Amino acid sequence: MVSSLEPGTPPRPRARERGLQFGELPVGPVNAITDVPGVEVGSVTIAHGQGEHATRTGVTAILPGTKNPYVNKVPAAIHVINGYGKPTGLAQVAELGEIETPIALTSTLSVGDAYRGLVLDALRRNPDIGKAAHGTVNPVVLECNDGELNDIRSLPITADHVLAAIDSAQTGPVDEGSVGAGAGMTCFGWKGGIGTASRTVSLAKATAAVGVLVLTNFGHPPDLMIAGRPIGLLAAPEPDDSREEAKGSIITIIATDALLDARQLGRLARRAQSGIARCGGYAEHGSGEFALAFSTGVLVPRVPKAGWVGREPPADMNQLFRAVIDATEEAIINSLFCATTVTGLLGYTVRELPVERVIELVEEKEPRRE
Amino acid sequence: MVSSLEPGTPPRPRARERGLQFGELPVGPVNAITDVPGVEVGSVTIAHGQGEHATRTGVTAILPGTKNPYVNKVPAAIHVINGYGKPTGLAQVAELGEIETPIALTSTLSVGDAYRGLVLDALRRNPDIGKAAHGTVNPVVLECNDGELNDIRSLPITADHVLAAIDSAQTGPVDEGSVGAGAGMTCFGWKGGIGTASRTVSLAKATAAVGVLVLTNFGHPPDLMIAGRPIGLLAAPEPDDSREEAKGSIITIIATDALLDARQLGRLARRAQSGIARCGGYAEHGSGEFALAFSTGVLVPRVPKAGWVGREPPADMNQLFRAVIDATEEAIINSLFCATTVTGLLGYTVRELPVERVIELVEEKEPRRE
Amino acid sequence: MVSSLEPGTPPRPRARERGLQFGELPVGPVNAITDVPGVEVGSVTIAHGQGEHATRTGVTAILPGTKNPYVNKVPAAIHVINGYGKPTGLAQVAELGEIETPIALTSTLSVGDAYRGLVLDALRRNPDIGKAAHGTVNPVVLECNDGELNDIRSLPITADHVLAAIDSAQTGPVDEGSVGAGAGMTCFGWKGGIGTASRTVSLAKATAAVGVLVLTNFGHPPDLMIAGRPIGLLAAPEPDDSREEAKGSIITIIATDALLDARQLGRLARRAQSGIARCGGYAEHGSGEFALAFSTGVLVPRVPKAGWVGREPPADMNQLFRAVIDATEEAIINSLFCATTVTGLLGYTVRELPVERVIELVEEKEPRRE
Amino acid sequence: MVSSLEPGTPPRPRARERGLQFGELPVGPVNAITDVPGVEVGSVTIAHGQGEHATRTGVTAILPGTKNPYVNKVPAAIHVINGYGKPTGLAQVAELGEIETPIALTSTLSVGDAYRGLVLDALRRNPDIGKAAHGTVNPVVLECNDGELNDIRSLPITADHVLAAIDSAQTGPVDEGSVGAGAGMTCFGWKGGIGTASRTVSLAKATAAVGVLVLTNFGHPPDLMIAGRPIGLLAAPEPDDSREEAKGSIITIIATDALLDARQLGRLARRAQSGIARCGGYAEHGSGEFALAFSTGVLVPRVPKAGWVGREPPADMNQLFRAVIDATEEAIINSLFCATTVTGLLGYTVRELPVERVIELVEEKEPRRE
Repeated sequence: MVSSLEPGTPPRPRARERGLQFGELPVGPVNAITDVPGVEVGSVTIAHGQGEHATRTGVTAILPGTKNPYVNKVPAAIHVINGYGKPTGLAQVAELGEIETPIALTSTLSVGDAYRGLVLDALRRNPDIGKAAHGTVNPVVLECNDGELNDIRSLPITADHVLAAIDSAQTGPVDEGSVGAGAGMTCFGWKGGIGTASRTVSLAKATAAVGVLVLTNFGHPPDLMIAGRPIGLLAAPEPDDSREEAKGSIITIIATDALLDARQLGRLARRAQSGIARCGGYAEHGSGEFALAFSTGVLVPRVPKAGWVGREPPADMNQLFRAVIDATEEAIINSLFCATTVTGLLGYTVRELPVERVIELVEEKEPRRE
Repeated sequence: MVSSLEPGTPPRPRARERGLQFGELPVGPVNAITDVPGVEVGSVTIAHGQGEHATRTGVTAILPGTKNPYVNKVPAAIHVINGYGKPTGLAQVAELGEIETPIALTSTLSVGDAYRGLVLDALRRNPDIGKAAHGTVNPVVLECNDGELNDIRSLPITADHVLAAIDSAQTGPVDEGSVGAGAGMTCFGWKGGIGTASRTVSLAKATAAVGVLVLTNFGHPPDLMIAGRPIGLLAAPEPDDSREEAKGSIITIIATDALLDARQLGRLARRAQSGIARCGGYAEHGSGEFALAFSTGVLVPRVPKAGWVGREPPADMNQLFRAVIDATEEAIINSLFCATTVTGLLGYTVRELPVERVIELVEEKEPRRE
Repeated sequence: MVSSLEPGTPPRPRARERGLQFGELPVGPVNAITDVPGVEVGSVTIAHGQGEHATRTGVTAILPGTKNPYVNKVPAAIHVINGYGKPTGLAQVAELGEIETPIALTSTLSVGDAYRGLVLDALRRNPDIGKAAHGTVNPVVLECNDGELNDIRSLPITADHVLAAIDSAQTGPVDEGSVGAGAGMTCFGWKGGIGTASRTVSLAKATAAVGVLVLTNFGHPPDLMIAGRPIGLLAAPEPDDSREEAKGSIITIIATDALLDARQLGRLARRAQSGIARCGGYAEHGSGEFALAFSTGVLVPRVPKAGWVGREPPADMNQLFRAVIDATEEAIINSLFCATTVTGLLGYTVRELPVERVIELVEEKEPRRE
Repeated sequence: MVSSLEPGTPPRPRARERGLQFGELPVGPVNAITDVPGVEVGSVTIAHGQGEHATRTGVTAILPGTKNPYVNKVPAAIHVINGYGKPTGLAQVAELGEIETPIALTSTLSVGDAYRGLVLDALRRNPDIGKAAHGTVNPVVLECNDGELNDIRSLPITADHVLAAIDSAQTGPVDEGSVGAGAGMTCFGWKGGIGTASRTVSLAKATAAVGVLVLTNFGHPPDLMIAGRPIGLLAAPEPDDSREEAKGSIITIIATDALLDARQLGRLARRAQSGIARCGGYAEHGSGEFALAFSTGVLVPRVPKAGWVGREPPADMNQLFRAVIDATEEAIINSLFCATTVTGLLGYTVRELPVERVIELVEEKEPRRE
């Protein structure tokens, strides 16, 4: 059964549509990372085959405020919550405080192919890369392991998939759940994948948007908390639905148009852990948990001039921190609410979250843990 | 009114005595950091004066498995959640992966005096320090700013207070709340201070203890969550009880007798943020949030020999991570449950958490956020 | 002219064969990283085409003490001297303190293909990777940009080249200069590439080997220092031999069989900068300078047990630090002494170091900088 | 004999006055850290007593562009080369990228007293510190261990010494050698202490100053290199002048008026290691090696506004890197050239570098290491 991955499946309701609220801050127009001006999201879902040849994977691409970040870089920082993962680009982002490619999310063993895809995207847009006097490019790829549902040994992702994901990027609502890089991901024993949310914050000088997009593939089933309720204890997946050793990872992408430099963005990235914790995550040994934050508020030209870089005052950081944590929590829950059941490798099925039952549990306020 | 700081005040009930539970792991014999064999805690509370001369502060000392860690160092790691703080000792702990003094907790501006106290403690126990062929000592001090209740400009802490706190250290139950370094601390607008909790985990080869002690001085009042319930929205402190800009810090000390090296202990320390998040903390801009983890399972002699260092297998890390997060959450709530009202600087009062009301709110399961 | 890259070219004499000495420590049997028991090096050189289609690149593979490090991981650490580079694997090495693949060195834009090659190598040796209950693998690729001589836009490296480099790995003497990943690299305006050296140190309990292998593509021509002499000022490459803005990178791989854990190996890695500095390097803005250190003294089984990990005493670290610095310096100079002239992209030629003239300058002791 | 520490001792010639040159960049007007506009240096030397009661120590204070950095903070970064040391202030500098006190250098065990001194300095200048709505202050103290010559167990430094050092701070030439914190320090077996140097660099938009001040207490005697010559092998201190296990530390303070943010300053700080390496340092196990870089080009008001922060373009970083390395090398050599013989603890004497002999060796170009 791969129907849930087929185009045309009507989206399931998001958490907020079902009455859940995460913090007090107002959300943006589409409650997605694309509420940050200039940010676009695209994806390619790859779902074919059955049994030992089941492919259930994909690529999600986030464009950080420009279609060609190589010529208009954006300030950025990456934080490692738990480093059992294989991202690329970390060292240069740490040194220069910038990203210069779209961000590609994909399956672990395919990181190399995604890297190649980002290189090809930079080459096709920038004929001067690799010419004698010119430099190289620093692809940023992050991953989770969808090996429960997906035959990762077949290395099904190609550079062309990455190019297609980039080409499909657009503003506005973002597909969530079992889509793109989220096609084969599992979250607290339920089907996870892509989720997103946003907040609007009032800073000293202006209003700013904060958007979060997560790729969820983490969590031990009994630990799931939704809106403070121990859902994982009250309504765990069927025993046969949950393999013994739940592993996994979560990638958190944070965008804002606040004027933040890389140091300040690092502070935002470090708050992702708090949002994850509120859903019951505890950063397991085998979980690759990374957060990347970037700002579209300042574009850095390829050959920067001496100049002045925008920066919000410290007093405004708290609103931004809060927005990151609340939006991360909501994005994770959205990934669960929106994902649909997927059957994949060796016929293994990961079911979608029973949203009606969950809403009942949150609303009934029945005694905890009885 | 400083009666709450007076000796003889009967302790208030801890969270677990009032029926709250944090996670599924069993707790240790006294549910305190001292459940880790060899760990001792001592404190000196300094409370005198009124008005602009009010002193409400103190020192808490944690002995890491030995009375003279200079000759029997313990593996350790310090993690910075939010670095708006003034700890000492970080660089050497990062380089060598060991601590070699007791850990002193105190008031921000008095860190220098606490450093001097730890130096004097090392000198009195080790006549060879400072002799030509011998070395120095790396004092570990962590702090929160108790300036809301305490006249910090008077620098009331002396090196002797630190020696007295060390000398008073003992195993068994630990005083919590408005005691020692916790005398003048505020947490989510209520009186905070010292809290502790412990867990027992079953590892591959043995049972291990994990103990946490926190010094709580953090949190925006509406954010307080207890056992998943938004207590801060339902029962905030009276408006005049809460100054506008809640700042603050939280120090988390994690002890275990599991055989962990410094790298592994760093992984434990990084989980403290998740426990803090579950109580509603979001690591505000001005909050100094540090976590220090050490293991008493391996004592490192002063002049180490080539040898073999114990290390738990990765598969056991998850139990330890879970224990850290759950015990951190419980320790924070214990600091609130046990702290008693304190009136201090300029007559300002920080009230104790209304425990009965909180328990009602947790048990009633009334609708969230209405 | 690509003859220098052709097989059969007799090797040029190494620095020590010409009388240079770097520090006082004894060298190992073949004065190469392969003096560390179990370490093997292999490479594939790819040289074909002319003009705008010139390919001058390759892959160098270092096997860290075992042919299948996935089942016998080795403790490791990576240090970033200057992060303008695109390595993979950093986050997991930092988290777990281990490497689990061979180390691949190659050309910048081809990092993704090298990643794929390391994945394929792990897959062919380990049928359980990617099976439901099993995990992933963390490929370690480091790179320099050989775009001066090599048409990097053509992405000439394939995963098969990586497999071939691994398959060719052997102990004993290591090819140096314009070979493997070094085929197209430039160092202080002269032809650089692969260089290696080793030291034998006497530790408290045993003798240990320290080996270094560098990939040199760094340095501003006038800065070159050899054995303390300002060779770059005395005998710079012809003006037309040196492009204006010398950029570049240097990768330093450090191996030892001393019993070091990841924390200690990080300390070794941080000493590479000192060896580079003694050759005149100053870690330019655009230079990707990374050092990776690993120990073959302890193999970590794939499913580790609780146990004891070997560790040298601190007193022995100094000998190891010294060995790293001296061997790094010598390895860099070896890369220059052994590399041969290469003509590549658009007919651009990078000449080999005029060794005879250099030796004269070092021996003549003519006045400095006059 | 403590005459060398007495006021009125005529200064010994600096390295450049004796014909040595370190790199090609021009030096500033007084070739000192005070060439950076606004930077002032002051010191207190404490020398009294004999035998087991010999005090040979002091405090050096660097004012970072303003007398009250608490109200006009400066961007800053601290880099740890080898963390066997006890600095304070690191965590907050890393989090906020600023320093807000003068920088105090002193003796290891007295770091707490120096911290107290910086607190008192901040309190006397800023009556609002510690008032309810206001915060704390982050003292920055760095240290070396002068225990070879100084009775460090007596904790001779007081907070008043720190205040006096700050009060004595001035622009213009800086006392070097056995002065202030340098009174009791040893460098490569010779008397070391304070050294300084500066460079002028031409950036895209303007000329900038780079100044370095070092506190030298490091180095194994045979390793000393001066201007590329192995002086330590050719003219080591008399055997009885050199204790067996040379330990030690080096603190490097880097100032500039280039418009750099904290991230860029971190890059400068990381270059100090290269300057140290060129003098023969190899960052021994027991050496506390820290570099702090700050910029006076941008003052950050205490309550910053949203705004724009100045930043030099990356292309200009190379000149700054080179300036840091060359000035660090020269400052170290100046500390040796200027320091005078000191007899201290238990009558132990550390002799001054025999400058005439060293100059002969550098100029004679006698055969290396024969």
